[in-house]
Amino acid sequence: MIGRLNHVAIAVPDLAAASAKYREQLGANVGAPQALPEHGVTVVFIDTGNSKIELLEALGENSPIAGFIAKNPAGGVHHLCFEVGDIAQAVEQLQATGARVLGDGRARIGAHGNPVVFLHPKDFHGALIELEEVRG
Amino acid sequence: MIGRLNHVAIAVPDLAAASAKYREQLGANVGAPQALPEHGVTVVFIDTGNSKIELLEALGENSPIAGFIAKNPAGGVHHLCFEVGDIAQAVEQLQATGARVLGDGRARIGAHGNPVVFLHPKDFHGALIELEEVRG
Repeated sequence: MIGRLNHVAIAVPDLAAASAKYREQLGANVGAPQALPEHGVTVVFIDTGNSKIELLEALGENSPIAGFIAKNPAGGVHHLCFEVGDIAQAVEQLQATGARVLGDGRARIGAHGNPVVFLHPKDFHGALIELEEVRG
Repeated sequence: MIGRLNHVAIAVPDLAAASAKYREQLGANVGAPQALPEHGVTVVFIDTGNSKIELLEALGENSPIAGFIAKNPAGGVHHLCFEVGDIAQAVEQLQATGARVLGDGRARIGAHGNPVVFLHPKDFHGALIELEEVRG
């Protein structure tokens, strides 16, 4: 079911400082910040050639990463995103095996304009897994 | 400096159970376990096509992931590994910018037979970063 590792998201308290670190200290290919108010985050993508790192900063009062930053003030790895071909089918298969899909279980349009779901980290060894539908 | 995202390592308390979850629930391409007593871990690789997930279970009494599992009994994302072309040069550049390389700062031979170093997670927003020399 899962395909490519689309990205690894790292939540950070200060996106400008994190972008500068990755660009200047690690010599990474760091993009421009994009504010996504409908998702409650500002994102910066780092292109690693084969995959991406997504740096996330909370935006607005109800940011989905505010709680994570409160618990991890320095930041930390927030989630891993794998691509799937058909997200409705993936959700059905996962739920049939007892895996919990967060929210109402239905896919929403994610930060990249594709349908996404998140799986309960307690079902996957403490890792928050995002599935994103990417049609081949 | 940093190139491809070589792998994302997830430390787990039970490698057989984690392998079964990724294989059966997520339909992932999960390899066979490899005991690496000299590194204090047993590893399983999951091939995502473009990158890899490395599941790690502690092996022996002085496993480098024992402390992590003690703090995160369910498991969690342990580190991200980026490829570099010349690790000695990478270390020199990083240290010149004030980034801390763990241990004595010299590369050691990692689990894949290549020279590796780890960077202090406090310098990179809570993410433990491994650099692995992969000659192109």
